[in-house]
Amino acid sequence: SHFEESSDFANYFCTYGFLYHQKQMLEDQRRMTAYHDAVMKNRSHFEGKVVLDVGAGSGILSIWAAQAGAKKVYAVEATRMSHHAARLVAHNGLADRVQVIQATMEDLELPEKVDIIISEWMGYFLIREAMLDTVIRARDKWLKPGGLMYPSHAKMFIAPVFNEETWQKHGAYTEAMSEWNRFTKDTKATYGVDMDCLTPSYRNEQREYYMGNGHWVEFGVQDIVGTTSCFYEFDMHTVTIEEVTNVNRPFQCTVQIDTKVSGFVGWFSVEFNGSAENPASVRVDLDTAPGLGYTHWGQQFFILYPPLHAQKGRVICGDIAVKRQKENQRLLELQMTHRVVRPAKDGTLPAQGDDAPVTSKWLVP
Amino acid sequence: SHFEESSDFANYFCTYGFLYHQKQMLEDQRRMTAYHDAVMKNRSHFEGKVVLDVGAGSGILSIWAAQAGAKKVYAVEATRMSHHAARLVAHNGLADRVQVIQATMEDLELPEKVDIIISEWMGYFLIREAMLDTVIRARDKWLKPGGLMYPSHAKMFIAPVFNEETWQKHGAYTEAMSEWNRFTKDTKATYGVDMDCLTPSYRNEQREYYMGNGHWVEFGVQDIVGTTSCFYEFDMHTVTIEEVTNVNRPFQCTVQIDTKVSGFVGWFSVEFNGSAENPASVRVDLDTAPGLGYTHWGQQFFILYPPLHAQKGRVICGDIAVKRQKENQRLLELQMTHRVVRPAKDGTLPAQGDDAPVTSKWLVP
Ligand SMILES: Nc1ncnc2c1ncn2[C@@H]1O[C@H](CSCC[C@H](N)C(=O)O)[C@@H](O)[C@H]1O
Ligand SMILES: Nc1ncnc2c1ncn2[C@@H]1O[C@H](CSCC[C@H](N)C(=O)O)[C@@H](O)[C@H]1O
Repeated sequence: SHFEESSDFANYFCTYGFLYHQKQMLEDQRRMTAYHDAVMKNRSHFEGKVVLDVGAGSGILSIWAAQAGAKKVYAVEATRMSHHAARLVAHNGLADRVQVIQATMEDLELPEKVDIIISEWMGYFLIREAMLDTVIRARDKWLKPGGLMYPSHAKMFIAPVFNEETWQKHGAYTEAMSEWNRFTKDTKATYGVDMDCLTPSYRNEQREYYMGNGHWVEFGVQDIVGTTSCFYEFDMHTVTIEEVTNVNRPFQCTVQIDTKVSGFVGWFSVEFNGSAENPASVRVDLDTAPGLGYTHWGQQFFILYPPLHAQKGRVICGDIAVKRQKENQRLLELQMTHRVVRPAKDGTLPAQGDDAPVTSKWLVP
Repeated sequence: SHFEESSDFANYFCTYGFLYHQKQMLEDQRRMTAYHDAVMKNRSHFEGKVVLDVGAGSGILSIWAAQAGAKKVYAVEATRMSHHAARLVAHNGLADRVQVIQATMEDLELPEKVDIIISEWMGYFLIREAMLDTVIRARDKWLKPGGLMYPSHAKMFIAPVFNEETWQKHGAYTEAMSEWNRFTKDTKATYGVDMDCLTPSYRNEQREYYMGNGHWVEFGVQDIVGTTSCFYEFDMHTVTIEEVTNVNRPFQCTVQIDTKVSGFVGWFSVEFNGSAENPASVRVDLDTAPGLGYTHWGQQFFILYPPLHAQKGRVICGDIAVKRQKENQRLLELQMTHRVVRPAKDGTLPAQGDDAPVTSKWLVP
């Protein structure tokens, strides 16, 4: 299959085998409400239909699909969680219509094509975990022409921020370096080995750790100091794996106060709109933006080091690339090139900024 | 090689590539002092000799070996830490005698056999990580007849305990179950799905998590309620991989007060004695027992659930088996069968205990 199997099971699938982990998702009220509403308020999409639930986990979405009138639901789950899903399905009186199958979606042959694919495949910053690949493959192989994707659309956002969290990371980094200096002194004094030559390497390592990784945060609107850029969006009915593996897009955010910008916050939304030919009667969305309340995804914080200064009205613009990590395709690597520019009276942006463009990199590990 | 390579690098070696992690070991004063003393107080073993450092990490042991007079040291390290080690060796003026080689020990050909193998291979409860296998293989292939192992001996211990930590774990387990019950009620009320049928599975999962795993602890002598059993010991010059993969030994601990026994604490020691033919001039040991002060290994706590009652003078005896986990050979699985018996006046133990023997299992994940 597409990922190296043994390490993928060791690293990726392992946690999903635990009820504890599924429970964390089942307790995410905004996630649950969105999927529940999407299904229950669009029963006409489900009544009498054949549904495929890609990555069924506990089976919750399959059960809802059946409760909404689906004639047959294939609930496909790679891990031993499938046993719990089967039990849950039976206990809720739906064993005649929901068939739980333990399999890697990629390796599975279904007896028929399906009318709807439902899946909760989103990872941090939308595409971490690369489960979207699995859903796209399932769509290309098993969705009938004109069939529906639940969710139907997805968007990725960033916005500039200035907040306390930054100084905590800066402080932790500084503290780590003082610690290291104490350590090298002690090691030389006590054990006769001079470790000073490793100081630059340790500094790099610690800077990577604190500034070179995305951090899970739960930000509020007050942390955001500029307009939001929706830098990427796609339709689940048509998006390709190639497209989502190589996201590289322009962005621009207008700074709204005189401020330092200490980083960017990234998040996503998905929508349940149906398709153009077969739209939802009630559109539902699940937006993980700052200020809308807890989701287990939170947001990702990408720290700028050092922070940049920007005046009200300036525009931060550039390009953002979201790629896969080479060593582990399920994890992300972000690269951003940005400059701060002063828009002309008519709103057009000059090619040159006040300062040279800056390139930053982060991992979403 | 012996472990499946790609997942082994993803799961096992990855952390050792970071200075942060090496630093945690380099700051472990009891570990450092033991190895430093072992080398520096036995210079006669090292002077003019060829040394192999298996898993050199930062290169610290190689540097000491060279400082103690070794004519040549091969410092073999699998991860990119080898680059830092090479820098450190050069910076400390030993590049002419210490040769750092980035390689998996198993895959490496050396130009000559060696007089001494030094290695810090110990994991939690001694044999977690299975790096001992690597050292044994290196010994069989590269140590000259009559050569020395540093350390030379190793021992594994358990003792019965009764302490606070137990009630914390019991409490956390109970709390997790109340949490679950709230959760199933909510899920039924809000989303129309009855999860009650998964309660026994969730209970098992949580019990496994809290009671079925060894926990890192730093116990004191006051936590121990019986005599210590050294249930396994071996000579590094002669031990085989087969022996350490299938440890299955009797143990017995005499209870020293009227008490509940809420579990067992497990730890290890290693000794630097040289060999029978070529003993150390100063013997050094590194003992990670409760009460001797911090090491990064701490001890492992294996909880009994429910606790057992024992009177002063009773003997807890039985068998302890330490095996590899099937899914990951570097991790451990412990099985213990024990009974509480009243020793006869002459100290002999009856075949039958007060109660039926109990079998418990734990993972060291
Ligand atoms: N390629 C694949 N084949 C089958 N299952 C997969 C898969 N990739 C991921 N999964 C499963 O997809 C699930 C995603 S989590 C979502 C679980 C459930 N649908 C819910 O909404 O609560 C996990 O249980 C994971 O094990
Ligand atoms: N099979 C193998 N081949 C080479 N190096 C190995 C190995 N198995 C483990 N190692 C390395 O052995 C080291 C063990 S930690 C000990 C590091 C150093 N000797 C010190 O005492 O501080 C790690 O850096 C790990 O990467």
